[in-house]
Amino acid sequence: MIYLDNSATTKPHPEVMDSFYQAATTFFGNPSSVHRLGMDTERLLRKARHQAASLLQVKDEEVFFTSGGTEGNNLAIKGIALQHQTRGKHLITTTIEHPSVLEAFRSLEELGFSVTYIQVDKNGTINIDQLKQALSQETILVSVMHVNNEIGTIQPIEEIASIVSAYPKAFLHVDHVQGFGKVHLPLNQLAIDLCTISGHKIHGLKGTGIMYKRKGVTLFPLSHGGGQEQSIRSGTENVPANVALVKAMRLIHEQMEQNKQRLEALKGRIIQKLQTMDQVVVNTPSPAAPHIVNFSLPGIKPEVMIHALEEDDIYISTKSACSSKSADESAVLAACGHRRKITESGLRISMSYETTEADIDYFLVKLAEAYDKLSKVMR
Amino acid sequence: MIYLDNSATTKPHPEVMDSFYQAATTFFGNPSSVHRLGMDTERLLRKARHQAASLLQVKDEEVFFTSGGTEGNNLAIKGIALQHQTRGKHLITTTIEHPSVLEAFRSLEELGFSVTYIQVDKNGTINIDQLKQALSQETILVSVMHVNNEIGTIQPIEEIASIVSAYPKAFLHVDHVQGFGKVHLPLNQLAIDLCTISGHKIHGLKGTGIMYKRKGVTLFPLSHGGGQEQSIRSGTENVPANVALVKAMRLIHEQMEQNKQRLEALKGRIIQKLQTMDQVVVNTPSPAAPHIVNFSLPGIKPEVMIHALEEDDIYISTKSACSSKSADESAVLAACGHRRKITESGLRISMSYETTEADIDYFLVKLAEAYDKLSKVMR
Repeated sequence: MIYLDNSATTKPHPEVMDSFYQAATTFFGNPSSVHRLGMDTERLLRKARHQAASLLQVKDEEVFFTSGGTEGNNLAIKGIALQHQTRGKHLITTTIEHPSVLEAFRSLEELGFSVTYIQVDKNGTINIDQLKQALSQETILVSVMHVNNEIGTIQPIEEIASIVSAYPKAFLHVDHVQGFGKVHLPLNQLAIDLCTISGHKIHGLKGTGIMYKRKGVTLFPLSHGGGQEQSIRSGTENVPANVALVKAMRLIHEQMEQNKQRLEALKGRIIQKLQTMDQVVVNTPSPAAPHIVNFSLPGIKPEVMIHALEEDDIYISTKSACSSKSADESAVLAACGHRRKITESGLRISMSYETTEADIDYFLVKLAEAYDKLSKVMR
Repeated sequence: MIYLDNSATTKPHPEVMDSFYQAATTFFGNPSSVHRLGMDTERLLRKARHQAASLLQVKDEEVFFTSGGTEGNNLAIKGIALQHQTRGKHLITTTIEHPSVLEAFRSLEELGFSVTYIQVDKNGTINIDQLKQALSQETILVSVMHVNNEIGTIQPIEEIASIVSAYPKAFLHVDHVQGFGKVHLPLNQLAIDLCTISGHKIHGLKGTGIMYKRKGVTLFPLSHGGGQEQSIRSGTENVPANVALVKAMRLIHEQMEQNKQRLEALKGRIIQKLQTMDQVVVNTPSPAAPHIVNFSLPGIKPEVMIHALEEDDIYISTKSACSSKSADESAVLAACGHRRKITESGLRISMSYETTEADIDYFLVKLAEAYDKLSKVMR
């Protein structure tokens, strides 16, 4: 199997599965229980949190375990909006965010907030001037993703953080789901207040994630209850899953620099080949994240290409899995200002540290074959 | 090990672990992906949902997978309140709910809702007259737990449902976390609109749960995003965990009737022994759920008894794990009108289908020994 849909989800690493299994069967106690089983589990949780904090170079108490990227994004965005609405009801995000960010903002519009959606250029980079103009004393939150999930654009978070920090009432949230382990984001050096990470995008388990929250920032929780996670995220701590998440974070972190170069080389190889193919348009800008290549095959329905490659046990995707069942076109490519011909024929290759040169070579041969065949039939 | 803290959490059943492992490694695709790996995973999810629905005797589309009891309770309660606030802003719950219900209601008070907290008698049964008086045309939600997590009281849900159904604007939510698999609740026969179940209380995994929502009932989601779970609960579906949850549901369901009698017998044995012990007060009423026995040892700090039993590898608890680190007394025992001497010395034994007669006999011997010893020292 050649799996090139790693931005949708990844296969859990065997060591991640082992960590989960060990923790789930040995440390099954409730960390809130006062007996030894509970305390042993709580100690394991504390250790996992400490390791996560070390990897992120933040404080232990700034790490909040969640059920994944969608929860992390919603908790950060709605949490700030509901908690700080008396200070202002204006929010800012961009037109190319993940649905879990965009829909969270739309839901806040229903609750009476006003939202500015910053536009992007052809490369998917946000319009900094528009951001500067949109910011006001009424703005309480700016949310910008680090790496775009469909085309791999890296936003200038350092510049954005510096601009937002001139507005003391405005918090900055960064959706780092596609960036973590691939493109470095120095949380400790930038004025980032909240940041979201997901486990299943980095060979961890589904249902796992972390929300970073700078110490002192207050939030209105989505789930109230037993007061776990400093009362920001109540519910019995999913210690085995959290331990497995930290294992996945360590694995990807350890080989990040080396893999980045390797993936950049593979990406170059893919783009080079695509550029030799008639009418193919590469939508991923340069520079961008090392693991994503987005391209369009005008006139060919992406689903048809996906199913053709599937016959050779190769798996790629159209747009984000989270919006794959809605409209025909990619909202991200449309936001970049591409024509309909491009937006409705986009395909995404997303690699991981498990992707090999042989995988890519085989994929490129099969892609070219399928493209030839389909071009004759479809056009 | 004799583990008698199953209402805090349970050890995952080996078959549950197997189901999880198989699904996580074989069906790791994103159910929203359009390729075969995604579709295979989606099929598995659909099958799991169908099995869960069959066990609950509800429709497939009435089953929503969540990350656990706390999320389910918050989603049901806040979801109704935020969605239907224009029809009325009055809510009703009881004084002995789990913190994930009580704190969700308190958070809604902050957002401008008014809440009536129905009181309970010495047995923990809610005051039906007070419920009748509290209900009005402004009431949009009543939330009552089925089985109390600390003392095992079973609320008269059938009677409550019949009373609430006379108010067409009022939805009824039942927290069934402690009841599922132990005390039957016929969702298809009662006017229940929403119901919460958790996986890790029934030898499933932490981070798993189901919210039942009657078809046609609309909710404001906690997490917006990719539109999974009918847009009620966005986020990549945690298929392996959901499959494991359904396995746990099947295991406990299959042996429910037989276990109920067995646990009732064990409970009788425990209570009989406790009644022979000087000054011991049994707080669990009769009838009640088969798996919980709550009692007080006036004058003895519950933590001291817990640590004494721990030496013999026996694990019991004070109050709910979710409130074990807050105040000294049990809020549930206080709500039942017990004196301070009782509320601050409560202990809970919670059994599961894995608990044997030998476990209980050994526990009772060790409890009596420890009680003798501690009585001499502490009083």
